[in-house]
Amino acid sequence: MEKRAVSPLEKHRLTYRPKRPQIFEDLTSLVADPVETIRSNRDIQALFPKTSEQPIVRFKSGASKSHAPLRVAVVLSGGQAAGGHNVISGLFDALKNLHPNARLFGFLSGPSGIIENRYIELNQELIADFRNTGGFDLIGAGRTKIETPEQLKQSLNHCKSLNLDGLVVVGGDDSNTNAAILAEYFLANECHTHVIGVPKTIDGDLKNAHIETSFGFDTACKIYSEMIGNLCRDALSAKKYYHFVKLMGRSASHITLECALQTHPNLALLGEEIEFKNLTLKEIVLLITDLIVERARLGKNYGVILIPEGLIEFIPSIKLLIQELNVLIPQGLDGILEKLSPQARQTYEYLPQEIEQQLMLKRDPHGNVKVSQIQTDQLLIYLVRSELKKRENYTGTFNPVGHFFGYEGRCGYPSNFDANYCYSLGFTAASLIHSGYTGYMGVMQKLTEPPEQWEAAGIPITMMLDFEKRRGQLKPVITKALVDLKCDPFRVFSEHRERWALEDCYRFPGPIQFEGPAHLCDASTFTLKLEQHLNVTV
Amino acid sequence: MEKRAVSPLEKHRLTYRPKRPQIFEDLTSLVADPVETIRSNRDIQALFPKTSEQPIVRFKSGASKSHAPLRVAVVLSGGQAAGGHNVISGLFDALKNLHPNARLFGFLSGPSGIIENRYIELNQELIADFRNTGGFDLIGAGRTKIETPEQLKQSLNHCKSLNLDGLVVVGGDDSNTNAAILAEYFLANECHTHVIGVPKTIDGDLKNAHIETSFGFDTACKIYSEMIGNLCRDALSAKKYYHFVKLMGRSASHITLECALQTHPNLALLGEEIEFKNLTLKEIVLLITDLIVERARLGKNYGVILIPEGLIEFIPSIKLLIQELNVLIPQGLDGILEKLSPQARQTYEYLPQEIEQQLMLKRDPHGNVKVSQIQTDQLLIYLVRSELKKRENYTGTFNPVGHFFGYEGRCGYPSNFDANYCYSLGFTAASLIHSGYTGYMGVMQKLTEPPEQWEAAGIPITMMLDFEKRRGQLKPVITKALVDLKCDPFRVFSEHRERWALEDCYRFPGPIQFEGPAHLCDASTFTLKLEQHLNVTV
Repeated sequence: MEKRAVSPLEKHRLTYRPKRPQIFEDLTSLVADPVETIRSNRDIQALFPKTSEQPIVRFKSGASKSHAPLRVAVVLSGGQAAGGHNVISGLFDALKNLHPNARLFGFLSGPSGIIENRYIELNQELIADFRNTGGFDLIGAGRTKIETPEQLKQSLNHCKSLNLDGLVVVGGDDSNTNAAILAEYFLANECHTHVIGVPKTIDGDLKNAHIETSFGFDTACKIYSEMIGNLCRDALSAKKYYHFVKLMGRSASHITLECALQTHPNLALLGEEIEFKNLTLKEIVLLITDLIVERARLGKNYGVILIPEGLIEFIPSIKLLIQELNVLIPQGLDGILEKLSPQARQTYEYLPQEIEQQLMLKRDPHGNVKVSQIQTDQLLIYLVRSELKKRENYTGTFNPVGHFFGYEGRCGYPSNFDANYCYSLGFTAASLIHSGYTGYMGVMQKLTEPPEQWEAAGIPITMMLDFEKRRGQLKPVITKALVDLKCDPFRVFSEHRERWALEDCYRFPGPIQFEGPAHLCDASTFTLKLEQHLNVTV
Repeated sequence: MEKRAVSPLEKHRLTYRPKRPQIFEDLTSLVADPVETIRSNRDIQALFPKTSEQPIVRFKSGASKSHAPLRVAVVLSGGQAAGGHNVISGLFDALKNLHPNARLFGFLSGPSGIIENRYIELNQELIADFRNTGGFDLIGAGRTKIETPEQLKQSLNHCKSLNLDGLVVVGGDDSNTNAAILAEYFLANECHTHVIGVPKTIDGDLKNAHIETSFGFDTACKIYSEMIGNLCRDALSAKKYYHFVKLMGRSASHITLECALQTHPNLALLGEEIEFKNLTLKEIVLLITDLIVERARLGKNYGVILIPEGLIEFIPSIKLLIQELNVLIPQGLDGILEKLSPQARQTYEYLPQEIEQQLMLKRDPHGNVKVSQIQTDQLLIYLVRSELKKRENYTGTFNPVGHFFGYEGRCGYPSNFDANYCYSLGFTAASLIHSGYTGYMGVMQKLTEPPEQWEAAGIPITMMLDFEKRRGQLKPVITKALVDLKCDPFRVFSEHRERWALEDCYRFPGPIQFEGPAHLCDASTFTLKLEQHLNVTV
């Protein structure tokens, strides 16, 4: 097979040298410093007897010493996020920094590659073609979880047969939980493979007091913001379209919030706020309609509205309807409306017929209503149009255009931030393995400082675990971080949004730049800066 | 009103100094050199007695001399294209280069601003905020045509009352035709305002032996290609989605062809080829289905397919159906199917019910079927899914995702190419006015050379005019340039597409870069390079 063509930017990025903390210059001198042990709750302790009493560790420079070459494997789990290849190249370079004979393997197509023992060895030449590139295509990814006793056993056998010192699991909340389970299982079954997680998800909902951000969030938000900014400029120039932009992010609205801070749209709906205020779908529709009517009064029949993909699942009254339908539908559709509670019925009858049918007829493999398939942007456009017809004082024109920005933000070239961050995460993962830790997540801290000053740490995953009911069973999970309505990113947004609604304060971020002054190329997200209480002008 | 926030990239771009031909360093020494007169046909001559016998002119350096300050106005016509603000800033700088007391006005919201005498004066300070930015929001744009005797008279009066030496019309084929009509009318009615057109359209269909490309095409294709490249990487990483990407461009498929050359998708449909080969909708569906089945056989249940927005309007059998429906529907819907010709009926019955209803019920203000509202990507997905169910040897999975990339490509920051090109076009327009020409289009040539070596010329618009039937009337128009199936861009595409179909040769252009080496930031489109027979590796 001929090689595929490499674009000038790809060629350029392949030679980019990611920035990293100074302490990573010589890994052989790195020492892990236990700083604090935070107790997990008792049930977590019972489930993770061997890994739940470990300390947080920070890395610092010590005396250089020699080490045996490590054998490590890496696996990519779940949806793509920009920077995955840099975790791998960072890991590779770190292992080679520790010992030139170190070896790195990549399990193929996600965790199923571990179960089925499908892997390749990653060498300098192979990795050279993937440095600073987007996507997960070097080794592929998948959503399989290693759960059953059989799967756990197979995974252990394959890590043993490869004689692995370490296994690096790159993934989101579920995958990192899975890493903790593997770590505990390996320890309990005398397998010396250390399991280290790396926080990945464009949704930005894997963060806490120790994890400042998950990788991929920065790039995804910047790609979406480029497009949204362009649409804002289009709205302002053509003065005749309402752009309804649905953005990826089902469980949390971090992406929508960050994109709002980046682009200053006329309205940005946040699932967490809607849930907190207990808004109904109709109230949301009225909110949008009021905005459109008010802007029309100012002679503005255009605008940009951001909607998180998961909006509908945040609306309490819709949740109630869905819950009732999930119980009632299996009993048959006959007379189902009469069986709904008055509130649920009211919600149902507000929906357009097409959506009603969709709710009744389309179900997922578990028999549940497929909320996720509802085209939220089109639903809102439909309902707003109906509502506008009722407004006698409204004489404007309404030309809505729906957009969905999702997949195109997962696989872009990582921004310099994500490229540097992920490369450093690879170093941290290698350092944790080499220091003999397992069941940890590798993290980087002080991320709003220049990369040379970032700090590396290891956090026991069990520390982040809690129990959650999933399909009727209590499961240990890392709780998803939702948008905190008391935190600075939301506060700043809510301070500005009234002005953004009516005046045209659009901000145009433009495409991600890789070359030029640092403030142009290396800046992190507003979310990250504001969460760290930096004094930022949006 | 508080000023809106300016992003770091916007701030950076405001200070970019566009590159331009060396001859533009001192406009006072520029002389226009008539090189050739190409006769228009007789009917055009009859319609444009005063402007149809003018020569093509080229600009070269001569002796410097002093000039009176010019008064010029500019108007933006039609849809946005990246670089409009640079035409204005180029025009402004050129006028000031000729004489510091020159003045530039901007008619607001398109040609209706001329008719209604709505304008602002453009000064250094105002223009400083718009240099190298996207959109048309400095003075707005509109689609009004100056056609009726009343409108022509009003326009003349307003140009006279502003005492304009020149009027620069920035627009596509129709707007430039309108510029020619204005030029002739002004000359015939003793108005000394010289009318100069500037070729704008992201669709890329305003080009010919003299116009190498319209501005905005470069940026739009690069923005779409960034996103398509990301989707290609997503397809390759997730290995489970078929991305159906519909791209802006109704009358011609240049955008789809350029994006295909940029990203190497598995399939790119081109309207012009479909029309030439007389393919039916069903044959197109079979083409796609065959590809999907063949890829599934290779274990590949993913891919990227590009579709031009105007596809459906290119399919001869659909055209026939539409023509018949447009005649029959006004006679009533009863028994309409029986009245269709057998071929049209066959086409009709192949369509999904939803589209059938749409064709019957939704009509434009002229009573015609609204072909443009058909969601081509969804239509193809629906029909391909049905076809796949019939294939017994197909055991793959088909997860299609539809996308439409349109508005986000019109208003982005102009690429360096478009920024330089448009700035230079502004200089050419100023030079034409200052040299006393009217009814010309300002053009730049040798665009694949470095900007310093570009050449400036003026082409009489009448030379490009021909007659076309529009709503029953013969009108002078600039014929749209369609994709030429004998030209190099198509030839190169067709030489590679078989390999691109089955192997994964995706190319990842990434976001537009503004800083860095020239091959990374300043390169023009493949289309332009290939049309100029450069030896290009795609």
